[in-house]
Amino acid sequence: MAVNLGPPTELKSIGGVTLATGCAGIKNNDRDDLALIHLSEGCVAAAVFTQSAFKAAPVLLAQRYLGESPPRALLINSGNANAATGSRGMQDAVACCEAVAGALNVDVASVLPFSTGVIGERLPVDVIRDCARTLAGDLAPDAWLDAARAIMTTDTVPKAVSRSVELAGHVVAITGIAKGAGMIRPDMATMLAFVATDARLEPSCLDKLIGRANRASFSRITVDGDTSTNDAFVLIATGASGMPAITSCEDPRFETLAEAIIDTARELAQAIVRDGEGATKFVSIAVQGGASAEDCLAVAFTIAESPLVKTALFSSDPNWGRFCMAIGRAEVAGLDPDSVSLWLDDVRVADQGMLDPEYAESAGAAIMSQSEFEVRGDLGHGTACETIWTTDLSYEYVRINAEYRT
Amino acid sequence: MAVNLGPPTELKSIGGVTLATGCAGIKNNDRDDLALIHLSEGCVAAAVFTQSAFKAAPVLLAQRYLGESPPRALLINSGNANAATGSRGMQDAVACCEAVAGALNVDVASVLPFSTGVIGERLPVDVIRDCARTLAGDLAPDAWLDAARAIMTTDTVPKAVSRSVELAGHVVAITGIAKGAGMIRPDMATMLAFVATDARLEPSCLDKLIGRANRASFSRITVDGDTSTNDAFVLIATGASGMPAITSCEDPRFETLAEAIIDTARELAQAIVRDGEGATKFVSIAVQGGASAEDCLAVAFTIAESPLVKTALFSSDPNWGRFCMAIGRAEVAGLDPDSVSLWLDDVRVADQGMLDPEYAESAGAAIMSQSEFEVRGDLGHGTACETIWTTDLSYEYVRINAEYRT
Repeated sequence: MAVNLGPPTELKSIGGVTLATGCAGIKNNDRDDLALIHLSEGCVAAAVFTQSAFKAAPVLLAQRYLGESPPRALLINSGNANAATGSRGMQDAVACCEAVAGALNVDVASVLPFSTGVIGERLPVDVIRDCARTLAGDLAPDAWLDAARAIMTTDTVPKAVSRSVELAGHVVAITGIAKGAGMIRPDMATMLAFVATDARLEPSCLDKLIGRANRASFSRITVDGDTSTNDAFVLIATGASGMPAITSCEDPRFETLAEAIIDTARELAQAIVRDGEGATKFVSIAVQGGASAEDCLAVAFTIAESPLVKTALFSSDPNWGRFCMAIGRAEVAGLDPDSVSLWLDDVRVADQGMLDPEYAESAGAAIMSQSEFEVRGDLGHGTACETIWTTDLSYEYVRINAEYRT
Repeated sequence: MAVNLGPPTELKSIGGVTLATGCAGIKNNDRDDLALIHLSEGCVAAAVFTQSAFKAAPVLLAQRYLGESPPRALLINSGNANAATGSRGMQDAVACCEAVAGALNVDVASVLPFSTGVIGERLPVDVIRDCARTLAGDLAPDAWLDAARAIMTTDTVPKAVSRSVELAGHVVAITGIAKGAGMIRPDMATMLAFVATDARLEPSCLDKLIGRANRASFSRITVDGDTSTNDAFVLIATGASGMPAITSCEDPRFETLAEAIIDTARELAQAIVRDGEGATKFVSIAVQGGASAEDCLAVAFTIAESPLVKTALFSSDPNWGRFCMAIGRAEVAGLDPDSVSLWLDDVRVADQGMLDPEYAESAGAAIMSQSEFEVRGDLGHGTACETIWTTDLSYEYVRINAEYRT
């Protein structure tokens, strides 16, 4: 039951991008589990991948192919991660890309593979190849929502966002889709995100843009502190809007576009948290007064990932002790407990390391009983501030993850 | 419901140590919540404390007093941590120590305070002082089990262990008590442990001994990855056995005594895990083949604290993917996924980064359905090995922590 998250509406087609989805039977049900995204010639793309040492075969292959050839197609399957599958997993990923390359008549290295789902099992290569060849004949510009559905695993809601923005007289469109609900933590999460725009920009500008967008969105979320083997965020610029290319990050249009892309990525990232496994709350953790952004993030993630904090969020228990316990163990050099203050939305709970004498626990409980609120800490230590987004830890989280696969 | 952990039996008195317990009403029920431990003149003591930046007032005061005076008494209350209570919390801790010092006619700096329980609330100083003065008249050598009960918070079983060991013809006794069930993680845990022996040794040897014992026991356990504000482990040597003092760590008796103390501390540490909040399994996580002990511990703790692994432990799901996900995000430099192997007890699940073709999932599930088993990973990367102990993550964990205080 996602927190304040409905299905997406009114997705914009992006010139230069067509999509198709189908059911290859990977998930053992009759839901679509394969998506093919075709990119017209001249598109530029950038991608960031999981930091896990246990990178899945499709991650390793997509990274290699990206260095060899401009991408012309993305093949994404759900239900099987093709991770921890060794050299056979790599052969399987190559075979799937070859089938798409043959059907679309493009170079194999221009087909990027993505997989998400169960780890440690081989891909059913034959059915994927057959299905992928069929999809190559079904491509359409308006299948974004179908694609958002096809890449879901434990997600309960498809995640997709569209924006448009005017760049010096040219209106460009942005559409993105994402999946993810568990094993969610930077950098990054059991998460796939694909964002396309018909803006035109140079690859070097796109590289800069994806880094910024990732830091402001997918690197600021955590559900359970666990990192997947398969995460990827791909940003595509097709140029189909016909605008003159952005060739420098100093171009004022770059900043306008960047804000719209970041906004899109952040909405997708927050949608992943809202649909977090077992989530009943969507909680912003803001940390200010840190000596550095790193210190603020260390404290914010320690709060967000503490099981004791997360169970207190679930039960709407304004337990100041658990927050200060988490702040205390965040390993921030020079932290002075007597300088730490804490708010729940606008209610000050603690001031200078102690419970605020004005604070009434009923006021804190009222804030925490909402489905969305902010926990804000001030370290009293500097001027940096950072915000991340997370969920609570519920019985339903345990049920979902204890009963997964069974 | 603790995992294979019964109440302690046959605790040995330790010459030079007397104890008394009472109910000061701190816990709002009629259970004992205050323990006084008196030490005869000439005892030596060493202690290690929480690494949290948010150290509770009693921790800061005990650390200061230890540097000023040989300890003659320990005053321990449960139900209230006296943490995040600022300068008033410090005054409260001093006031409690003064009451004990007056009643026992010892220097105030020879009274060490310890508190465990709810964070952020003031101690009821007056009732504690009255109760402590009464306890000073009730001291007895055989009240170790009562003391183990009085320091419990969410513990379901009192934790106490006795040993005896012969040191060159002199038999010495060791008795230890501990509490802890949640907010358990090195270094250290919402945990208090007090171990006393009637062996005689120099303070420098005792300091070395407590470091070794702590590393082999309380620093090798995790329930929920959370670190408390109040942890302490105190080791006391009374010398009452009459043995000639150990004055050097080269003395062969030092090694014999160290092994017995480590054994005692490890059994207490494991008892804390067995009584971990909501625990249904007691799981050893062994990591071998690491380049260093630090690498092995990083992988072991990442596995042990992953919510996805912990829910799989709960449901007896031999989900190789979750283990390799956790190994992959442990941030071990130079880790090669294709060198990683994994066992559940003697059943090899994965070999060289892939599912073992001989492996049958039913065999893995059979191991994991036991109440105790070992998860063993080999990083294929070096010769270091480390073992830690942890629990699963159950519905009951969520219930206990969501309903705490309410």
